Amino acid sequence: MIKARITVTLKNGVLDPQGKAIEHALSGLGFDGVGLVRQGKVFDVELSESDKAKAEADLKAMCDKLLANTVIENYSVTLT
Amino acid sequence: MIKARITVTLKNGVLDPQGKAIEHALSGLGFDGVGLVRQGKVFDVELSESDKAKAEADLKAMCDKLLANTVIENYSVTLT
Repeated sequence: MIKARITVTLKNGVLDPQGKAIEHALSGLGFDGVGLVRQGKVFDVELSESDKAKAEADLKAMCDKLLANTVIENYSVTLT
Repeated sequence: MIKARITVTLKNGVLDPQGKAIEHALSGLGFDGVGLVRQGKVFDVELSESDKAKAEADLKAMCDKLLANTVIENYSVTLT
């Protein structure tokens, strides 16, 4: 069994209102010096596949088809 | 300036309906052998702090106070 972590983040330049809200909330809580905050998503996936190359190809296909909107988001796949 | 990535994931045993929905959607798309899927959140934070130990302590405090619900979620902080 292969475990993988997929991280999906917004591309640079794409507005992230949720990240902005977190920035303001952190400042309001007294954390000084907080710069840019960007929020993304993480998916921990278990695969019954044993071939690492095949698993990685499958995971990338999952991102392209379902997990990420590649117009505005980047993704990275890490086998763990 | 320090950049950090905070990853917030649900603790084991906490129900994750969103992860379950993704499992079913992936099966429906023809991906066989997909086991457990768990969804979490990721925050990329920039700090103007230069002291790494202080930054890490601040980031952990941010997680405890705002970014994670420590009753049901784990978090990890990585300086990048």
